[in-house]
Amino acid sequence: MINDHPEIADIVDAASRLSGHAIRTPLLECAAASELTGGRILVKPEMLQVTGSFKFRGAFNFISRLSEEERRRGIVAFSSGNHAQAVAAVSRHFAAAATIVMPRDAPAIKVEATRSFGAEIILYDRKEESREDIARELMESSGATLVPPFDHALTIAGQGTVGLEIAEDLALAGATPDQVLVPCSGGGLIAGIATAIKARFPDCRIFAVEPEGYDDTGRSLAAGSRQSVDIAAESICDALLVPTPGELTFSINSDLLAGGIAVPDETTYRAMAFAFRHLKLVAEPGGAIALGAVLDSSVDCRDRTTVVVMSGGNVDASIMREALSASV
Amino acid sequence: MINDHPEIADIVDAASRLSGHAIRTPLLECAAASELTGGRILVKPEMLQVTGSFKFRGAFNFISRLSEEERRRGIVAFSSGNHAQAVAAVSRHFAAAATIVMPRDAPAIKVEATRSFGAEIILYDRKEESREDIARELMESSGATLVPPFDHALTIAGQGTVGLEIAEDLALAGATPDQVLVPCSGGGLIAGIATAIKARFPDCRIFAVEPEGYDDTGRSLAAGSRQSVDIAAESICDALLVPTPGELTFSINSDLLAGGIAVPDETTYRAMAFAFRHLKLVAEPGGAIALGAVLDSSVDCRDRTTVVVMSGGNVDASIMREALSASV
Repeated sequence: MINDHPEIADIVDAASRLSGHAIRTPLLECAAASELTGGRILVKPEMLQVTGSFKFRGAFNFISRLSEEERRRGIVAFSSGNHAQAVAAVSRHFAAAATIVMPRDAPAIKVEATRSFGAEIILYDRKEESREDIARELMESSGATLVPPFDHALTIAGQGTVGLEIAEDLALAGATPDQVLVPCSGGGLIAGIATAIKARFPDCRIFAVEPEGYDDTGRSLAAGSRQSVDIAAESICDALLVPTPGELTFSINSDLLAGGIAVPDETTYRAMAFAFRHLKLVAEPGGAIALGAVLDSSVDCRDRTTVVVMSGGNVDASIMREALSASV
Repeated sequence: MINDHPEIADIVDAASRLSGHAIRTPLLECAAASELTGGRILVKPEMLQVTGSFKFRGAFNFISRLSEEERRRGIVAFSSGNHAQAVAAVSRHFAAAATIVMPRDAPAIKVEATRSFGAEIILYDRKEESREDIARELMESSGATLVPPFDHALTIAGQGTVGLEIAEDLALAGATPDQVLVPCSGGGLIAGIATAIKARFPDCRIFAVEPEGYDDTGRSLAAGSRQSVDIAAESICDALLVPTPGELTFSINSDLLAGGIAVPDETTYRAMAFAFRHLKLVAEPGGAIALGAVLDSSVDCRDRTTVVVMSGGNVDASIMREALSASV
């Protein structure tokens, strides 16, 4: 048991910091998915967030608390892309220099967007080099601060504001959620969301949705301890390729989650096309995966109220064209 | 001067009817367009509305006021697609039978969606037949009620809730809009929006954005009387092909609008790709056209606060693939 689990008060505090900087994304009824499943499906579209994913929330909550002196020494992050863009954008907001360590196979749209926020980018080989080592060297040489992508209480509390907004909007609508489905990689988003949702709706079941082959959180939940997957596996979900749950995130998630669901890439493509057609939203693969779990009936939604978190929309046009060709 | 111009009170009344049925769409900062123009660009994404366009609002406001007896006799509408879907969905909500007259060249996604709401569809030839005549015959034979696509005070008041929400969100953010750009066909959406915005921000300039060749509202505003365009013209904006402004809408718009802007299809394609990339929103051509006017500098946005209304997202995947290939 780790003692720095963020609490609902930390998430409420993060929300007040984010106010006026982050977009308060709406909670959308998805009539087409409701009809398909015989339940009520609501979607939280975090692709509409600043920088196109939820990551802005955690990065802002973390960086906004650094001292002037810390910001002057600079910011470092490692990320496949969404955290990169978020850290770059927030660093620019606070006039801090950012260096981002990104995998060489990150989507072009993510690398370009990160560069457009003025960050310096260091590319590495995801299967040969350790991004943690590269970042550590940078920090030691410059005194820069690393913005943790998921395994930190402030990051988790920031991402938890997604759950806080969901809970507020549901309460306002007089609705009680039976289950919430969240894309999961390192586990920061779902840990924050679960903390916020469980505070208001203790009986709601929260599920981690992961790509087949990268279902480390699902396996870890089943085993009762942190398990790693083989990073030789391939998945279209570039944002969800962390092979092992975080220590802090897993400590929270093993307390709060109902389980994990693994989704094949074909289903994720189908979910991207469904979001295009019925929600008018651009979802990246990792952002669409939880909707995939609904569409292929991996989770029973009949007569239930299900909230589907769509975590990001930073997808290259070529991948979207492929999803639309394959599925519509 | 026509005396049934809807007033702000009618729009507030429409908003209370729509509450719990329509989606209150957010007002999104568009950082990329702000950077490009040197101004502040805010986007109102009505593709997120129920049935994928703003049309749900006007249809709901109109149909919700019919008597039980009127609804029993059925509902008729003519539409290129967005009004069709909206009327079909609202009719189903009120358990009324709907018959929709649609042009044979309407996008497949719109025809299928309309059918999926249980409406009967009658296809006609846009350049050979009069949809008004077909609808009139239907009404005479069955006693069904026609839901006007734009030229009716209740329709306009319903669409005006888009403007009411924009005004509320701007006031909440402490912002004053310099200009609002609205896609325009028959003129109902912009008439409603102008009524709502001008009530709170009398100095704000409202512009109608139309496809090149179908800029009948712009020409009519310049001439001071209703002008028609030649329907031999072609445009990718299937939702904006009404050749003449409405009588009531033009009466309102000639009082309230600052002018019209005509946008070529290439720019509209570019705006669709821009919305995909930077806003993560799926815009149909007619829904993206006002953003096009910003991107190609048809309107000066430097140091100004500009609200761009994106009116719908019902676009076939093949057209979106084309927009993405051409522009990204």
